[in-house]
Amino acid sequence: MSQIRQPYLLFLGDAPDRLAAKTAVGVYDWRPDACVGQFRLPGCVPDLGIDEPGIAGAVERGARTLLIGVANRGGTIPSSWLAPMCEALEAGMDIASGLHTHLDSIAELRETAGRAGRALIDVRVPGESYPIASGEPRSGHRLLAVGTDCSVGKMYTTLAIEREMRARGFDADFKATGQTGIFIAGGGVPVDAVISDFIAGSIEHLCPAAPHAHWDIVEGQGSLFHPSFSGVSLGLLHGAQPDTLVLCHEPTRSHMRGLPHQSLPGLQECMEANLEWARVVSSNPRFVGISINTYHVDPADRESLLGRLEDEFAMPCVDPMVTGVGALVDQLAQ
Amino acid sequence: MSQIRQPYLLFLGDAPDRLAAKTAVGVYDWRPDACVGQFRLPGCVPDLGIDEPGIAGAVERGARTLLIGVANRGGTIPSSWLAPMCEALEAGMDIASGLHTHLDSIAELRETAGRAGRALIDVRVPGESYPIASGEPRSGHRLLAVGTDCSVGKMYTTLAIEREMRARGFDADFKATGQTGIFIAGGGVPVDAVISDFIAGSIEHLCPAAPHAHWDIVEGQGSLFHPSFSGVSLGLLHGAQPDTLVLCHEPTRSHMRGLPHQSLPGLQECMEANLEWARVVSSNPRFVGISINTYHVDPADRESLLGRLEDEFAMPCVDPMVTGVGALVDQLAQ
Repeated sequence: MSQIRQPYLLFLGDAPDRLAAKTAVGVYDWRPDACVGQFRLPGCVPDLGIDEPGIAGAVERGARTLLIGVANRGGTIPSSWLAPMCEALEAGMDIASGLHTHLDSIAELRETAGRAGRALIDVRVPGESYPIASGEPRSGHRLLAVGTDCSVGKMYTTLAIEREMRARGFDADFKATGQTGIFIAGGGVPVDAVISDFIAGSIEHLCPAAPHAHWDIVEGQGSLFHPSFSGVSLGLLHGAQPDTLVLCHEPTRSHMRGLPHQSLPGLQECMEANLEWARVVSSNPRFVGISINTYHVDPADRESLLGRLEDEFAMPCVDPMVTGVGALVDQLAQ
Repeated sequence: MSQIRQPYLLFLGDAPDRLAAKTAVGVYDWRPDACVGQFRLPGCVPDLGIDEPGIAGAVERGARTLLIGVANRGGTIPSSWLAPMCEALEAGMDIASGLHTHLDSIAELRETAGRAGRALIDVRVPGESYPIASGEPRSGHRLLAVGTDCSVGKMYTTLAIEREMRARGFDADFKATGQTGIFIAGGGVPVDAVISDFIAGSIEHLCPAAPHAHWDIVEGQGSLFHPSFSGVSLGLLHGAQPDTLVLCHEPTRSHMRGLPHQSLPGLQECMEANLEWARVVSSNPRFVGISINTYHVDPADRESLLGRLEDEFAMPCVDPMVTGVGALVDQLAQ
């Protein structure tokens, strides 16, 4: 996958609701300065509340890439999107997408991009070949967010940690391993799309040896305990070679995401398992805290929940969107 | 990947030594009845000691596939191989290969195969899309060979178990997850070439729900403790959902294969880790024994080594090529 050129014009298409446009929402939440505006078609419901400069206006503002920030049912590209997409290519923008339908499978886009000399970037397609992981100890700090399950807040946690660390003067970079994270960072490794022999190698490539004071803040994926995706999680853990981990958890979930028969691991069990496997590649890995997604928790109960977990595990317990992650970053400074 | 049609004509090319022809050797060792003969070019050193009927003679004997049973330096296909390969296609055989160079990347082969209506089968290329694993409990027995490291005898162990079980009247099928195993079985999943999101799903597809008395004997890959390939091993373990495991080990190895800095896990540690992770998907997994590759052990010491390990772990300890695997299969009958 090529580097994605920022800033973006966020394409919301004819999204029926905010959830359908969650990629655009996530990118704008975390990189407002990398977005020159939004592009909405007639019938589009969600509204980021930012300018709509149109294609030509976006180019004037410096937009380099039209970012398809909407997921259509079935991951297809409806014909109503093609005119503005081609206009963007002809105006000098690349197009980047995480949809199932590959951009270059559509002749009109492929031909227009070829003629205009612009790139069609599918972030589900790893565009480079990665090495086999060596597992050799390497310099620099790496923090990895791991989870009791999929979709429990690993991306938001790592982005919040990067923001807080940078605000405090740390040399820290968020390293993306999923589609939305890749749009936010402008690059990364779509690890769930990598050939399985190269999972760990792709992550070694993503966060290589670095100066001693540098921190790579690595977005985790899945869970060691999720039988559909555990291989990705273990390969990612071994490739990341983290010295520092944060456990992410969604406390209202009754079973593993998508698997009604599969129960969640306990937090203690999940931390121990991740430490056990981190030790295969890291000499002294440690958890610096727990990140709880309390979105579905009664607001009146949030504080006591976080407090109880802090007492139980004797480490900071935060919700990035409620308390911030300052308490986690305090631990890194030590 | 298509089903590979047996029987085979084994192509040894101009292999300089037996190691270069180890795929052909392995297929002939385990499926002599599936091989109508060998095909050697001038200069070929290894000799399987079987007939050399030539292309036309092989077809007369029923050969359906020319099996490229030799690994060339760099995985390339030299031009000297093309004439007999094209002759085989024109005579009605498919060609199957596990080389890095894909057969259909060579215009002459592609065109000849197209004209003759024959298949070019690259076993490194998963030819079908696999589902995301569900992890749901399923019927039938599954035995998985796991290892302390890569290349410690998992394929030979599982093939020997299949042979012994069938001899005793069990309903048992070897399930291949690597290239040579796929040639032997005539099909399988090249799990290290599968997109990482589908590792476990590809193995659920390979060994689906089966009648209660049926056994799938699943070839393992890598090791949970090998940081280059651990993701494949964990995804394979979760996809296989084994009720029965065998630990494979090579006792003379001083470090993980290819990684001089990486020490091997202990046998006890490796069994406990595999059981711990098998329990995510299986209710009561157990090890029925240990398979030791004693090839590099002084023959005078083999028996005492196996005896010591049997005492230490209180389970059968065999070398498939020396003692056979009867003691392991005894455990399955219980």
